[in-house]
Amino acid sequence: MRGRMSAAKSYAKPVEVGEPMVGGTVGEIVASRNAKFAVGDIVLGYGGWRDYALSGGVGVRKLDPAAAPVTAALGVLGMPGMTAYAGLLEIGRPKPGETVAVAAASGAVGSVVGQIAKIRGCRAVGIAGGPDKCRYVVEELGFDACVDHRPPDFAHQLEAACPAGIDVYFENVGGAVQRAVWPLLYDFARIPVCGLIAQYSATTPTPGPDMFSMLRKRLTLRGFIVTDFAAKEADFLRDAGDWARSGRLKYREDVVEGLENAPAAFLGLLAGKNFGKLLVKVA
Amino acid sequence: MRGRMSAAKSYAKPVEVGEPMVGGTVGEIVASRNAKFAVGDIVLGYGGWRDYALSGGVGVRKLDPAAAPVTAALGVLGMPGMTAYAGLLEIGRPKPGETVAVAAASGAVGSVVGQIAKIRGCRAVGIAGGPDKCRYVVEELGFDACVDHRPPDFAHQLEAACPAGIDVYFENVGGAVQRAVWPLLYDFARIPVCGLIAQYSATTPTPGPDMFSMLRKRLTLRGFIVTDFAAKEADFLRDAGDWARSGRLKYREDVVEGLENAPAAFLGLLAGKNFGKLLVKVA
Repeated sequence: MRGRMSAAKSYAKPVEVGEPMVGGTVGEIVASRNAKFAVGDIVLGYGGWRDYALSGGVGVRKLDPAAAPVTAALGVLGMPGMTAYAGLLEIGRPKPGETVAVAAASGAVGSVVGQIAKIRGCRAVGIAGGPDKCRYVVEELGFDACVDHRPPDFAHQLEAACPAGIDVYFENVGGAVQRAVWPLLYDFARIPVCGLIAQYSATTPTPGPDMFSMLRKRLTLRGFIVTDFAAKEADFLRDAGDWARSGRLKYREDVVEGLENAPAAFLGLLAGKNFGKLLVKVA
Repeated sequence: MRGRMSAAKSYAKPVEVGEPMVGGTVGEIVASRNAKFAVGDIVLGYGGWRDYALSGGVGVRKLDPAAAPVTAALGVLGMPGMTAYAGLLEIGRPKPGETVAVAAASGAVGSVVGQIAKIRGCRAVGIAGGPDKCRYVVEELGFDACVDHRPPDFAHQLEAACPAGIDVYFENVGGAVQRAVWPLLYDFARIPVCGLIAQYSATTPTPGPDMFSMLRKRLTLRGFIVTDFAAKEADFLRDAGDWARSGRLKYREDVVEGLENAPAAFLGLLAGKNFGKLLVKVA
């Protein structure tokens, strides 16, 4: 979404000034001339930031409220969950016993990354903003450790939490967190680059990572977006559904009431003020 | 070798002050108590910068002077050739019709990268220092284009030589060449990181590549050293031998006479003054 608020060339089309902001939505069908959707159906779609949206039915998927809370389709069982699943397993390729570090660890993507790392037999180390989020990541989500990136001794704390170095760093944030992670990367570490939230609004370029480490440690750095792995969606829905039902995959939602509060909530997200998957309840 | 002249942690052990400099050598057996090697045999080994070396026989391989000129075992049929082969094919994974760009294109590694790219049906674009090297790369090695990185309009010339962008950038140099290549990388480009010769002697850190491009273009950047791909050596020796015999894989040697000239020749290499694989003839 932040990328769409810029005219810079990207995989996502910019949103024009005056257009509704795009975004994933869970909604209720209130009128239908499409035989596939009946009034009252709950659907996942891409309706954007508004009260009502018209759709021809393409890209809209009916949800079963009996199978899982429908809002999970926007988080752990939807695009953020799939992003975590594909980036970690297809690019990160964690092996049992390895250390997986993830920033924004209490967020919609990061929380799933660490929980899948644990399911795969890894040491999961989260990085999050503030003691409440860190406590949640360890006590509720079951990560082995979580380090608060705000205190001045963050880099030392992170090193202490990763005594065998970092084999997979799932990159969500960039900036100062990336700089602290870099010296801890172990030989042949893999870095799926999913997001750079600390850099999106920067007005001066942030220096990229040290190339000598790339060479000396034979690192693999790879950018991706979730749609690159569309072929893995069925695997994801099966695995994540199983894990969620059996309680191995937990999640938390941060629900803001009222569409009029969406812009402030979005600015808060960019500043790390949300706690869990940020959702806006429209009505 | 340059990396070994520093105490910094790396995959190669530093050379201590006063020790002979290490390096690959082709030599003649002048005395032997090992049944596998007879006086007069020509061998590939790791004798280092000296007139005579003692060996227990481990890591020493007999060469057949009838099969290929023995010096080729230090270049196109040896470690540099294998580096090009493994980095390009295992990490770069070029597909027919794609554009492969390589810096230090007249050098021992770069020249092989571009020639294999041509064999695989790609457009090969070299980058080299000066018009003589560029002419050689196109006219003798058969690259589609070669751009001189020294003139001020280098970035524009490179763009003109890569009308469809760059799908594989084989990184040998870093620095200013890397900065010119970066905006030309096409979506899903692969960047095997083999060397950073323009940065080895830098006294201030060189900023790493732009992370936003990594994400937007879904780039893959991967550092490697040739020994990471030891399992591919038999394939390499078979393919490179075939290509060299059939004249599809050409090479050039830059031979410096006299061990006493090795340090100056090495400094020249770091400044791009050699033309082809740099060899020092000891006796």
